[in-house]
Amino acid sequence: ELALTLIAGPCALESRDMALDVAGELARLGARLKIGVVFKASFDKANRTSGEASRGVGLDAALPIFAEIKEKTGLPITTDVHEAWQCARVAEVVDLLQIPAFLCRQTDLIVAAAKTGRPVNIKKGPFLAPWDMVHAVNKARDADAAGVLVTERGTSFGYNALVADMRALPILKETTGAAVVFDATHAVQQPGGRATSSGGERRFVSTLARAAVAVGVAGLFVETHPDPDAAISDGATQVPLGDLEPMIEELMAFDRLAKNVGQ
Amino acid sequence: ELALTLIAGPCALESRDMALDVAGELARLGARLKIGVVFKASFDKANRTSGEASRGVGLDAALPIFAEIKEKTGLPITTDVHEAWQCARVAEVVDLLQIPAFLCRQTDLIVAAAKTGRPVNIKKGPFLAPWDMVHAVNKARDADAAGVLVTERGTSFGYNALVADMRALPILKETTGAAVVFDATHAVQQPGGRATSSGGERRFVSTLARAAVAVGVAGLFVETHPDPDAAISDGATQVPLGDLEPMIEELMAFDRLAKNVGQ
Amino acid sequence: ELALTLIAGPCALESRDMALDVAGELARLGARLKIGVVFKASFDKANRTSGEASRGVGLDAALPIFAEIKEKTGLPITTDVHEAWQCARVAEVVDLLQIPAFLCRQTDLIVAAAKTGRPVNIKKGPFLAPWDMVHAVNKARDADAAGVLVTERGTSFGYNALVADMRALPILKETTGAAVVFDATHAVQQPGGRATSSGGERRFVSTLARAAVAVGVAGLFVETHPDPDAAISDGATQVPLGDLEPMIEELMAFDRLAKNVGQ
Amino acid sequence: ELALTLIAGPCALESRDMALDVAGELARLGARLKIGVVFKASFDKANRTSGEASRGVGLDAALPIFAEIKEKTGLPITTDVHEAWQCARVAEVVDLLQIPAFLCRQTDLIVAAAKTGRPVNIKKGPFLAPWDMVHAVNKARDADAAGVLVTERGTSFGYNALVADMRALPILKETTGAAVVFDATHAVQQPGGRATSSGGERRFVSTLARAAVAVGVAGLFVETHPDPDAAISDGATQVPLGDLEPMIEELMAFDRLAKNVGQ
Repeated sequence: ELALTLIAGPCALESRDMALDVAGELARLGARLKIGVVFKASFDKANRTSGEASRGVGLDAALPIFAEIKEKTGLPITTDVHEAWQCARVAEVVDLLQIPAFLCRQTDLIVAAAKTGRPVNIKKGPFLAPWDMVHAVNKARDADAAGVLVTERGTSFGYNALVADMRALPILKETTGAAVVFDATHAVQQPGGRATSSGGERRFVSTLARAAVAVGVAGLFVETHPDPDAAISDGATQVPLGDLEPMIEELMAFDRLAKNVGQ
Repeated sequence: ELALTLIAGPCALESRDMALDVAGELARLGARLKIGVVFKASFDKANRTSGEASRGVGLDAALPIFAEIKEKTGLPITTDVHEAWQCARVAEVVDLLQIPAFLCRQTDLIVAAAKTGRPVNIKKGPFLAPWDMVHAVNKARDADAAGVLVTERGTSFGYNALVADMRALPILKETTGAAVVFDATHAVQQPGGRATSSGGERRFVSTLARAAVAVGVAGLFVETHPDPDAAISDGATQVPLGDLEPMIEELMAFDRLAKNVGQ
Repeated sequence: ELALTLIAGPCALESRDMALDVAGELARLGARLKIGVVFKASFDKANRTSGEASRGVGLDAALPIFAEIKEKTGLPITTDVHEAWQCARVAEVVDLLQIPAFLCRQTDLIVAAAKTGRPVNIKKGPFLAPWDMVHAVNKARDADAAGVLVTERGTSFGYNALVADMRALPILKETTGAAVVFDATHAVQQPGGRATSSGGERRFVSTLARAAVAVGVAGLFVETHPDPDAAISDGATQVPLGDLEPMIEELMAFDRLAKNVGQ
Repeated sequence: ELALTLIAGPCALESRDMALDVAGELARLGARLKIGVVFKASFDKANRTSGEASRGVGLDAALPIFAEIKEKTGLPITTDVHEAWQCARVAEVVDLLQIPAFLCRQTDLIVAAAKTGRPVNIKKGPFLAPWDMVHAVNKARDADAAGVLVTERGTSFGYNALVADMRALPILKETTGAAVVFDATHAVQQPGGRATSSGGERRFVSTLARAAVAVGVAGLFVETHPDPDAAISDGATQVPLGDLEPMIEELMAFDRLAKNVGQ
């Protein structure tokens, strides 16, 4: 089994400068820790709780920034797509197309993403059982996806809460055959729990990440921001960029142990 | 308070003849029972569990059928939209645009639907608390929607199951100010519970519908099919067309009682 | 089908005078509305959230009060038992023994209650599916219970919340064959949701009661108190005694409709 | 932080010979792996799904067997108590009294257990949020318990299912200050999911145990049986005795890592 890969970056592509700074930091972190890093940022927060919330720079502005980040840092890039027409354009630059959790059953979107020739990372909807993700994966494979990943990010648990069922990780792996990623920042969200935005409990990011890595995952997804409290979205759950390295280093020790001892 | 309105029709627009037959039956039922009826059918089942499942006739074929149904039966028509570009075209014919539950947080879709000048019916995602639907409603209102309805269709309850919380009905009404519809057929779905499609328990449609009407709703949403076991989608939950009239008649008695006694 | 029966009274038997007052009011309400009433009060709140909370007068003090209430009001009495040894003593006076929801799987308690010759009302644990209550009912029947009732009072729904699934009512009836009661005050509890006691939302008592009666139940369980905010337990969910009569009168209209139209 | 302790044994004390055999194996396993072991068996399965299920040898027969096991193996013993009167008798022999999950709010039982002078291990009810266990712990402390442990064993998640929220482990530790144990066999139960008994998925015992140990726990609770398919209870979740040692050895590596790196 391959060592842990890190998918990380700010929730939203807030600006060119900020994205370049974060990507630079992540590239250095990857080099120091010898861990593969994929840079993630959303060009459009298309499903904000409230319509008045900031949404990011948009597709047109984002693509040249993504290209610049790739060139300057050497990091592969991932971002999420929301409607089928976006996929081909995004795939000109972006290396891995992400299907948002709420859209994991939108057949046209998955097919359009798969047809780009780029691998696709499908997030499990919070309303879906892990054994039902195989259908989403098959939609991508039947459209000749270059590769498929699946990401666990928690399941609805009453109102305004998610729970991360660690059994989902081996179930996803067995039933889909895809590489399994654990999204430790969305898994601690409290969706809709605040007035006009989603809250969350950042302090449990490392708790859940450690559990997931010990169980065994191919990748870890973590949103990180230089100053989460100033982030335009998901500030309550993003990890401060300065805190990321010790957390990842610790998780890599669990990853080595998990992948040595087998399961 | 106005008397109960019925939104009904087959899950999928399977063919012109079938849709016209069902709509004709529903128009006669409406006249006999003196209940307002809106005809519903999906031109595209865009979020089927499996990619191999049938999806309906598609947008281009559906619009002339919808127009013919309107002309021949006099019924207003509703259908669901999945990407923003569809809204303006659909609104040329369709009277009420429905936002699917999984897409209730997609801002662009809601805004595009609202801007058509047609009223919009937003289904509550199974991952959303009822008090958080106000944000979806405000997205439509801020885009000058001609009117907004909200539809309750159950909330995630463990894996492969939904539960219909009857408290959601007054909460939706109070917090959104919108007319509240109860979708009695999707509320009895067991999402993903079968190999490659969603199952459900049709026998509880009338149970939950009765509870909802007694609590007080503006409308009832029921999928109905001449032969549910032969339906291309959601056969396990659609009500046989021949069983619909006595069920609705019974529910109208509860509706009169609920709206007389106030709450 | 028989008309609705009301099981009502204060959560806790706080004092002789208070219990007699409430029972007298309930007896008059029953006579005016022509509805059967069973008086309920707990002699011991044996499972309070916190150990420092008040627990009621205790078994020895309660039995003569129960006897006096029976004699003066003519109402049958029900109370809950917590350990097997209590059953025989309680049954000397009390007409219906109630098994608390958390104890619905304690075999010895159910058997001891059944062996008293009094009917037994088993509350469904919030951790139990409705179709699994048949095992609890069979424990009572195998011990020759004089009769068995089952009470639905909500199911765990994430942390600190319950949801009342209206499908549980017909499922309980079909699978157990027992008379089904709906407990509208515990179903709106928010267990543990406050610092050292359980909270709740009294305003939804009538919402859920109306849904349940429309679906069809043999009985309704409602905790009521002259001044809920001064109650020693469950103040957040008890119905003010002065508000009870109009609520019950309204529910009786739904009950007549539900039992006329069949289901 | 102390190294992981193992609480293990058959679900039910089926017979003297079987219990002695299992305890002997566990004592040897503890010596080989240098891990503290507490022997666990229930003298009475007091809350079986069905009344016809086997319940174990009973209190009178169990106490001399427990005494013999202590003497012959040197292992401390734990067992669960169900009514207050049992506590003092059990405490004559047993070293750690366990409060069953369904009974975690029964004040008298917790107080009686605490007053024995033995430490008490309170299992979290599947209906309880982790932050509400502090009240149960305080009931024991206020009765001068010699020590208190708390055990996480999953939370209700829809019908017939549990989910183990790994956040509960640090929450329990922070809010109660008690040593936290993770029960990996009950956490994979499917309560009531079979005709007349509870099912489960044994294959996820090591998945959840690994997650919990990586997050950090004081102890691990595992039911084990020489031949689980022949066990009188919980056969679907008990770990075959022959498979236990490699699983525990693997978990001890995660425990060392978790307790070195801190959290």
